[in-house]
Amino acid sequence: MTRKERDSLPLIPRVAANRLSRYLRHLEELSNRGKATTSSHELGKALGVTAAQVRKDLGYFGQFGFPGLGYKISNLIPEIKRILGTDRAWSAAMVGIGNLGNALLRYKGFQAHGFRISALFDINPKLVGRTLEGLTVEPVEQMERVVQDRAIELAILSVPASAAQEVADRLVRAGIRGIYNFAPVQLNLPEEIAYVSIDLAVELEQLAFLVSQRDREPVKRQGVEGSKSVGDL
Amino acid sequence: MTRKERDSLPLIPRVAANRLSRYLRHLEELSNRGKATTSSHELGKALGVTAAQVRKDLGYFGQFGFPGLGYKISNLIPEIKRILGTDRAWSAAMVGIGNLGNALLRYKGFQAHGFRISALFDINPKLVGRTLEGLTVEPVEQMERVVQDRAIELAILSVPASAAQEVADRLVRAGIRGIYNFAPVQLNLPEEIAYVSIDLAVELEQLAFLVSQRDREPVKRQGVEGSKSVGDL
Repeated sequence: MTRKERDSLPLIPRVAANRLSRYLRHLEELSNRGKATTSSHELGKALGVTAAQVRKDLGYFGQFGFPGLGYKISNLIPEIKRILGTDRAWSAAMVGIGNLGNALLRYKGFQAHGFRISALFDINPKLVGRTLEGLTVEPVEQMERVVQDRAIELAILSVPASAAQEVADRLVRAGIRGIYNFAPVQLNLPEEIAYVSIDLAVELEQLAFLVSQRDREPVKRQGVEGSKSVGDL
Repeated sequence: MTRKERDSLPLIPRVAANRLSRYLRHLEELSNRGKATTSSHELGKALGVTAAQVRKDLGYFGQFGFPGLGYKISNLIPEIKRILGTDRAWSAAMVGIGNLGNALLRYKGFQAHGFRISALFDINPKLVGRTLEGLTVEPVEQMERVVQDRAIELAILSVPASAAQEVADRLVRAGIRGIYNFAPVQLNLPEEIAYVSIDLAVELEQLAFLVSQRDREPVKRQGVEGSKSVGDL
């Protein structure tokens, strides 16, 4: 897709984009199972939203459904990827190769969706120089040069909370465009830097909270919100 | 805390509970740095919310702040833990010891917040019987017995999407009360089961989407929402 074609795409609210990702996941699974078509009803059921919501979300990029026939999966998958910007490969740096960084590095789910980890950085001299999953851990001082040389656009940040802001500032100076933050801290970033943050322990704590709430009240009152995916923004 | 005391706790909306977790993270960090007090202004700044929001959130469980003096950190930490239900240990089973399960098992962040992984399950006969991080991988057929014997309340689910619902149903039958789902699929669970779901690849895809959106539009229009943490529900 050319820049001009990309510019012509409609603007999508963030919450709808989140659902598009999840429609895509389900469509890929249906496709793997050999299915050729699906319906707004089926997609909605799989994701826990209404068929009307599915039609509205997919309506952002024109009419792909055929009344009574549903959506052709082989059309829908590339369209959603185009909208999400995952119709091309993305290069990411993994910053912080401690316990969580190491774990995330071994997780193959990112690669499966077109994300390639192409650099590793750490501040710890004991880690620098080591080879992990075919990549050598480089010192954070090399970040600016490596990010530019390898045209890396995204960074997966898994450093301790106390170091996260400083490392993020350095990533911004190096020209990174988006940060996927696992450090348990809120980062202050310039508006032009995209930002997604996950705190795995906070989410588990939320689960404990939801179980505790169920001890305190009849389920009905909490039910719908409590059973909602955190990804449901 | 007795059951009766717990019952007397106020009901907290899910979005506020999410912020409570993040206040707690920040308070623990301040405490580690030797600080004794904080203010709604400081907490708000650290989390990217207003001081008024902080006062409102902390107001759910009475007045702990002193005008002009702020909050005493040593009071606030146990209070928030009590509200969240993390003032006690929680026992969790890890289900699915593939690539991601293995990674999550090595992540020490759960233990640091009072969550103990006390059983491992997998369906793969090659994995069953192996010892990982001091625990033996057991077959899913043993789930009901082990969950009851060890009084396990939570499950961390990292099985393939195609197996997730079936395994979740089995966990429910075994008496699990909350599921932390990493499988890229929406689970259908009874209302009484607490549920938090994270798709690590979907979130990275969202980051790519946000970067792509910035190519298409002036930053200002997307800024605030785009820079919001995904945890910000």
